[in-house]
Amino acid sequence: MTSIAASFVRNGKKIVAIGRNYVDHVKELNNAIPKEPFFFLKPTTSYLHSGGSVEIPKGIIAHHEIELGVVIGRGGRDISQANSGAHIAGYALAVDMTARNLQDEVKKKSLPWSAAKGFDTFTPISSFIPKSEVTDPQNLNLWLKINGEFKQNGNTSHMMFPIPRLIEHVSSIMTLEEGDLLLTGTPSGVGPISPGDTIECGLSDASTQKELAKLQFR
Amino acid sequence: MTSIAASFVRNGKKIVAIGRNYVDHVKELNNAIPKEPFFFLKPTTSYLHSGGSVEIPKGIIAHHEIELGVVIGRGGRDISQANSGAHIAGYALAVDMTARNLQDEVKKKSLPWSAAKGFDTFTPISSFIPKSEVTDPQNLNLWLKINGEFKQNGNTSHMMFPIPRLIEHVSSIMTLEEGDLLLTGTPSGVGPISPGDTIECGLSDASTQKELAKLQFR
Ligand SMILES: [Mg+2]
Ligand SMILES: [Mg+2]
Ligand SMILES: [Mg+2]
Repeated sequence: MTSIAASFVRNGKKIVAIGRNYVDHVKELNNAIPKEPFFFLKPTTSYLHSGGSVEIPKGIIAHHEIELGVVIGRGGRDISQANSGAHIAGYALAVDMTARNLQDEVKKKSLPWSAAKGFDTFTPISSFIPKSEVTDPQNLNLWLKINGEFKQNGNTSHMMFPIPRLIEHVSSIMTLEEGDLLLTGTPSGVGPISPGDTIECGLSDASTQKELAKLQFR
Repeated sequence: MTSIAASFVRNGKKIVAIGRNYVDHVKELNNAIPKEPFFFLKPTTSYLHSGGSVEIPKGIIAHHEIELGVVIGRGGRDISQANSGAHIAGYALAVDMTARNLQDEVKKKSLPWSAAKGFDTFTPISSFIPKSEVTDPQNLNLWLKINGEFKQNGNTSHMMFPIPRLIEHVSSIMTLEEGDLLLTGTPSGVGPISPGDTIECGLSDASTQKELAKLQFR
């Protein structure tokens, strides 16, 4: 039987997405550098698994944000940084699609980000990567190409708040459950995708170059 | 066997909460009247079922917002107002607890509302009310008392956007699934609860006075 964690796309209940966790990305959008992590929720109905197409609603400018996803194995609340590893089942490569023009509009009005982040198909996701396959989650390369051209190419060592700190912060507010996905923020290079574009993404171990995940969609 | 809808507290995946849907509440917080519905997401880990205590984190001012919850029975996307009734399994009485000082702070910074709305125990919820027991969901009284004193006392006929419009709007952005809960906004009278307060809430049919739900917590 598959665990809930391994089948998180079907059986997980929430996606907790961290904002502004890479300095270069914070700067490219002229945002303030956060003093502590912050997050928003995406619905699991936004998952787009095994290819397919991101649906861009009429009038929406849809930006790609390549991110490392952390899949929760053992649930908990008030998880300490020291214990956080025991709560991780594995990883996934994800794209946090963002309706940037709608997000800009709601930010001006101090309204929630939920719609701008939550459209169906706005979370393209790779297969589950068991944590045994990952030597060091803070030394992974993650990249995204549009029509063969690199747009994002980062390394998880550049996170301002590393994964244990993120798990500590989120679980101090809301209980994490098996199958929940934690998105850890995006490096710089975000930008729009257009209908017909081919988007390819990859995740690899930066020390061994071992490929951990690939993800392609239109 | 219980349906997913009837056991939505345990088995539902998302809570979609509408903001500013009663004019008197919009005015009491000096907010702008929205031209179309907007919403945020709450995690299902925030449910507080059958009594218990709302946990108020240190430094947080926790406001009560009494709301009618709509439990989705049949999932769907792009649901029309005309078809929306067929997607409803029933109702529940809910309190959308809100960390008001944290919400004010993130609104100033144009940040997401997710933490301010998402703490564990921040969605006290009644038992499931099958829709067969509800004559007209737009003519229900909902009230909240603290230590015996009325704080909120509204009627769902005063929603600016009625339930069919809310379902149409949300499902145009994200697929609704069986067991999802739609919170429909709060009437005026929101305010803080303090540790030790007894909070009692009720939902009744305004034409027959039939009581549909009661909810008590501390
Ligand atoms: Mg939000
Ligand atoms: Mg992101
Ligand atoms: Mg509310």
